[in-house]
Amino acid sequence: MSTASKQIIKNLSVDCVVFGFEKNSLEVLLIKRKGNPEKGSWALPGGFVLKTEALDEAAVRILEETSNVKNIYLEQVHTFSDINRFPLRRVISVAYFALINPEKHFLKPGIDTTDAKWFEVNGDIAFPFDHESIFAKALNQLRQRVRNKPIGFELLPERFSLTQLQNLYECILGESLDKRNFRKRILGLKMLIPLNDFEKDVAHRAARLYKFDFKTYQVLKNKGFNFQL
Amino acid sequence: MSTASKQIIKNLSVDCVVFGFEKNSLEVLLIKRKGNPEKGSWALPGGFVLKTEALDEAAVRILEETSNVKNIYLEQVHTFSDINRFPLRRVISVAYFALINPEKHFLKPGIDTTDAKWFEVNGDIAFPFDHESIFAKALNQLRQRVRNKPIGFELLPERFSLTQLQNLYECILGESLDKRNFRKRILGLKMLIPLNDFEKDVAHRAARLYKFDFKTYQVLKNKGFNFQL
Repeated sequence: MSTASKQIIKNLSVDCVVFGFEKNSLEVLLIKRKGNPEKGSWALPGGFVLKTEALDEAAVRILEETSNVKNIYLEQVHTFSDINRFPLRRVISVAYFALINPEKHFLKPGIDTTDAKWFEVNGDIAFPFDHESIFAKALNQLRQRVRNKPIGFELLPERFSLTQLQNLYECILGESLDKRNFRKRILGLKMLIPLNDFEKDVAHRAARLYKFDFKTYQVLKNKGFNFQL
Repeated sequence: MSTASKQIIKNLSVDCVVFGFEKNSLEVLLIKRKGNPEKGSWALPGGFVLKTEALDEAAVRILEETSNVKNIYLEQVHTFSDINRFPLRRVISVAYFALINPEKHFLKPGIDTTDAKWFEVNGDIAFPFDHESIFAKALNQLRQRVRNKPIGFELLPERFSLTQLQNLYECILGESLDKRNFRKRILGLKMLIPLNDFEKDVAHRAARLYKFDFKTYQVLKNKGFNFQL
């Protein structure tokens, strides 16, 4: 790509809220800023949009360039435009979000970053700029999402117990769910196939394992549903 | 406001998709463009964002300036960024949407427009630019919305029949709904108060009238629900 075509749109950026689910913990990917403003702070991976790219492309490029996370689907959340959100000049930022399995990605700091790390969503994160608002909006979108679309295929092992699946939902929603109600409703969606396999090496009674019925999962993903928890 | 502070951000615009519901018809507000490009075409009301305003403010201002529609709540839908979406230069556009009662607004062409008019959503509309995509995205959002939030308070008369309410839903969703199922579910939300009033001057059997329980309506609006139709 020529230098000219690489020019950025100076007042338009993208910020990525990438959630990770691993070992019963919901986390968010942050990068350590190399330069000013807010040098040294842990921020959402972000950057300026090039004149030659659409926003979706910018999000994918920027995430990879700052943290090495690639080949994931990012979805647009909301555009943030407070006049003073960026201290140096007027910058409008388009937020994107994704939910991935951290184990499948090797973090590596890149452009404008000195480090990239997962932070627990429930921990005490001191966001720079308006990143707390952006993060909150994306988390809210994720919480809405689990009520309307199937989730878990890319996050759980191929065979999993209903408790593992419930843990995923509880981590995302940040609240405990009634076990009986959850099971009834999740099985009612008919996207799980019960296996003749059971958990191994557990102290409690071994639970049955399930896998996703991928075809139904895809149909529900396209069609959406209303999952009342 | 001084001339300097009125400067626009040249590559950032807002487009408004304002839906109207009136006499059992879902309509969209379009304005006739005064200047080039696409002079004379019927387009979504839009304009450039000022350096001194946030996007929400821009949407409200632009809608009023182009069509005289004011004092309504506009909600951000999505940001459109195709490289060639605007023929003269790179412009990213943030779409907003609203659903209003056309009777309550007096349309008047304003800045950059020669006319403002309601068009039937189901009619054959030849949108300029990428306005068809923007319109489709907003309509889709509206259709999602009626499944998650109460609707109708600002659109129906104070006292209305269940058939009127069902018509509103059918117009938005663009499909017929089963009468029994609709009634059961809508009454199940407990946001309607049955009145001891009935329709007057109708050929068929006069139907009972209802009004919204405003308190419950507001609670449901904040909390959201899952309305399976």
